Amino acid sequence: MAPELSQPTAHTIGDSLGLLRERPPLVQCLTNIVVAQWTANTLLAIGAAPAMVDNPREAAEFAVIAGAVLVNVGTPYEETAAAMSAAVASASASGTPWVLDPVAAGALAWRTGLALALIEAATPRIIRGNASEILALAGGAGGKGVDSVDTPEAALEAAKALALHYGTTVAVSGPVDHLTDGVRVVRIANGNSLMTQVTGVGCALGALMAAFAAVVDDGLLAASAATAALTVAADEAARVSRGPGSFAVALLDELAALSPQALASAVRLS
Amino acid sequence: MAPELSQPTAHTIGDSLGLLRERPPLVQCLTNIVVAQWTANTLLAIGAAPAMVDNPREAAEFAVIAGAVLVNVGTPYEETAAAMSAAVASASASGTPWVLDPVAAGALAWRTGLALALIEAATPRIIRGNASEILALAGGAGGKGVDSVDTPEAALEAAKALALHYGTTVAVSGPVDHLTDGVRVVRIANGNSLMTQVTGVGCALGALMAAFAAVVDDGLLAASAATAALTVAADEAARVSRGPGSFAVALLDELAALSPQALASAVRLS
Amino acid sequence: MAPELSQPTAHTIGDSLGLLRERPPLVQCLTNIVVAQWTANTLLAIGAAPAMVDNPREAAEFAVIAGAVLVNVGTPYEETAAAMSAAVASASASGTPWVLDPVAAGALAWRTGLALALIEAATPRIIRGNASEILALAGGAGGKGVDSVDTPEAALEAAKALALHYGTTVAVSGPVDHLTDGVRVVRIANGNSLMTQVTGVGCALGALMAAFAAVVDDGLLAASAATAALTVAADEAARVSRGPGSFAVALLDELAALSPQALASAVRLS
Repeated sequence: MAPELSQPTAHTIGDSLGLLRERPPLVQCLTNIVVAQWTANTLLAIGAAPAMVDNPREAAEFAVIAGAVLVNVGTPYEETAAAMSAAVASASASGTPWVLDPVAAGALAWRTGLALALIEAATPRIIRGNASEILALAGGAGGKGVDSVDTPEAALEAAKALALHYGTTVAVSGPVDHLTDGVRVVRIANGNSLMTQVTGVGCALGALMAAFAAVVDDGLLAASAATAALTVAADEAARVSRGPGSFAVALLDELAALSPQALASAVRLS
Repeated sequence: MAPELSQPTAHTIGDSLGLLRERPPLVQCLTNIVVAQWTANTLLAIGAAPAMVDNPREAAEFAVIAGAVLVNVGTPYEETAAAMSAAVASASASGTPWVLDPVAAGALAWRTGLALALIEAATPRIIRGNASEILALAGGAGGKGVDSVDTPEAALEAAKALALHYGTTVAVSGPVDHLTDGVRVVRIANGNSLMTQVTGVGCALGALMAAFAAVVDDGLLAASAATAALTVAADEAARVSRGPGSFAVALLDELAALSPQALASAVRLS
Repeated sequence: MAPELSQPTAHTIGDSLGLLRERPPLVQCLTNIVVAQWTANTLLAIGAAPAMVDNPREAAEFAVIAGAVLVNVGTPYEETAAAMSAAVASASASGTPWVLDPVAAGALAWRTGLALALIEAATPRIIRGNASEILALAGGAGGKGVDSVDTPEAALEAAKALALHYGTTVAVSGPVDHLTDGVRVVRIANGNSLMTQVTGVGCALGALMAAFAAVVDDGLLAASAATAALTVAADEAARVSRGPGSFAVALLDELAALSPQALASAVRLS
C-alpha cells in the first residue's frame, strides 16, 4: 500500500518461499470443522507449523507467540467466534499479523457481521475471498451491495476500495487471482478447475497467506507468494491426477516438493 | 409411497444423475466433525455444491435457499443440535426436502430422542441408516425394540413400517441395500467390503441422497440413485485400490468420473 | 510397572496385533476437530471400531460399553472438555482403560490443567506425548519445569517419574520412541520423517494405543504394539510415497495390510 513498496515479481515470490523454508512459521488457525485437517496438512506441506488453537481460553495467549493468525469463518459457533475476537485483539496488540478468510460473507448475516467486526477491531494483513465475499465486505464498508456487481473487474475495484479503506491487502480468488493493496495490483494465472472440486482449497490458500505473512512484511507479496505456491503446485498435481480425490493428495505432495526456483520459474504473473 | 409412483429402474436412476449434473444442487449439511470434509468432497465429486451451515444463528436462514438439507447426528452438541431443529423447521416451512442420517440411534439415548423429535417436527424426505439404527427408530415409532430383531429382512419390515408411519422413504444400508417407501421396495447389490473400512461412507451416502432429493421429487428414486452412484463408484474404486486409504481417494475420483450411462449400465437392482 | 510383568518383545508385540484382529475393540474417541476423520480411519485400518462420542450427554454412557477410551486435548471446548471429564470418570468406574494424549500441554495453560485434572481423577492406562508434553506433565506432577530439560534422555527420566508417580505407562514419541512404566523401558526405532509432515500421526498413535489397551492388559505392551504397528506401517508407506499426501494414504493401506508376523519381524526394539 505504501508507495515505496515494489511490485511483487517471480523473483521475490520465489525468495519468499525460500524464507519460509528457512524459518518455518508457527501459524495459529481458527478455522472451520470442514477443512481443519486439510489446512494443517497444507501448512505442513509448504513447510510451516500449524496450531489449531481456537477456544476463548487459549486463543489470545497463543496469538502472542504465533508467527501469524488465520481466521476463517466457515463454520462459526459461539465459542469459536469469541475465540476469533480474542485472537485478533491479541494479535493486534502483540504485532502478530492476521489473515481473514470471510467464507460465505454476504450470503449469511451473522458471519458477515462477525467478519466486519473483526476487521474493524484490528486491521488484518490480508483479506482473502472469492468475488462475492469481497464484494459483500466492500459493500459493508463502503456502501456497495453484494448483488450490485459480480464481474472480476468489478470485484477488483471493490477489492481496491476495501484495501484502501482499511489499509490492507485484498486477494480475490478465481480462475485468475486478483490481488491488490489498493495501489499495486497482481494477477496470477496459474491453477485449474480441479481446485474447485476439492473442498477447502480456498481455505488452504488463506492459511498459506498467513504462513507467508509471518515471514514477509509486505502483505501483497505474502498473498502473491501463497497464491503462486498453491496454484503452481495445483498445475503440477493436475498432471498426475485421475480426479478430485487423487488431485487433493497430489497437491500436498507437490507443495512439499516445490522449490523456490521452480516456483519463480512457473508462476504466471500478468 | 403414493401408488402412482413407478418403480425406480436403472434407466430412471441414470437419468437422475443426469439431472443432478445439469443443475447442481446446493446441499446444506449439518453433519458430524468426523466426516465434514469427506462429505463435502463426496458432494463436490458427484457434482453438487455443499454448504456446511450448522449453527443456530444461520441454519434456518440457509435452509430456505438450499436445494436440500442433510441432518446427520453423528457428533451432536448443544449448539449443532439446536441448529438441526431450526434447519428442519425452516426446511419444512419453505418446502426444502431434508434427509436424516440417525447415526448410532438406539445405542445412545440423547441422539435417539433428537432424531425422533426431528422426524416428528417435520417429515424427512428420506431416512438412511444401518439395520440397527432403522430398527431403533421403528421401535421408537411403532413399539418394536432395537434388540428384538436384526436380520436384514426384519429390518426391511421395520423400514416399511417406519416409512408408512411417517410417509417417508427409508434406506437400510448393508451388503445389499434395502430401500422402501412402505409400498415399493428397491434392493441394490453393488458395493464391497472396503466401504466399511473407511469412516463416513454411510454418512456420505446420506449426503448424496440429499443431493438427489434436491433434483428428483420421488424420495425412493432419489435414495436409489444415490445408493447406486456410491456403490457403483465403489466397485470401480475397489479395482484400483491397495487398501482403505487408496480406496477412499479412488472413490472420489470414480464419483466424479461416473456418467449417467455407466451408472445405468452397472447398477444391480434386484 | 509390576515387577512380574515381562519385557515386551517382537513376539508379544506381533501377538498383540493378532489379538486385536481376532476381537476388534470398540474405541471411544474424544479427540480434536483436526484429526477426527484421520483417527477414525487409522483405527478402522488396524481393525478396530472407532466411535467418536464426545458430548457430555452421551460420553459417560458410552464409556461403559467401549473397550477403551481415548482422550486427546488438541482442540478443547467447554462442552468437549466436560465430556472428557465425564468419560474418564465413567471409564474408571466401569473398568474401561483410557489413554491420554496431552496435545500441547505445557504450551497452553487451560489444557495443561485439564490434562492434569483428568490424570488426577482417574489413572490413564497410557499417557502418550512428545518430549515437551511429557516434561510439562512431569513438571506439574513432580516439580520439574517444562523448560528445564529437553533432551530425549531427560524426557525419559521425566517419563519414568511420571509413570511411577501415577502408576501408568508413559510413551514419548520421537525419532526413537521411548516407552516406560517406570521400571521397564522399551525403545522402538522404526518410523521416518514423513510422519512429522502429516497432521495427526501422533494423535493416531494415541488412538492405536487405546485400541491395543482394549485387548492387552499390560499398558507397556499395548503402547509398544501400537507404536510398532504405526511405525512399521510408516516404513512401508514411505517406500511407495511421493510426499506427505501420498504417504498419509499409503499409511492407511499399510496398516490394513500389516500382519502380526510382518510386524514381529520388522519392529526394531533396542
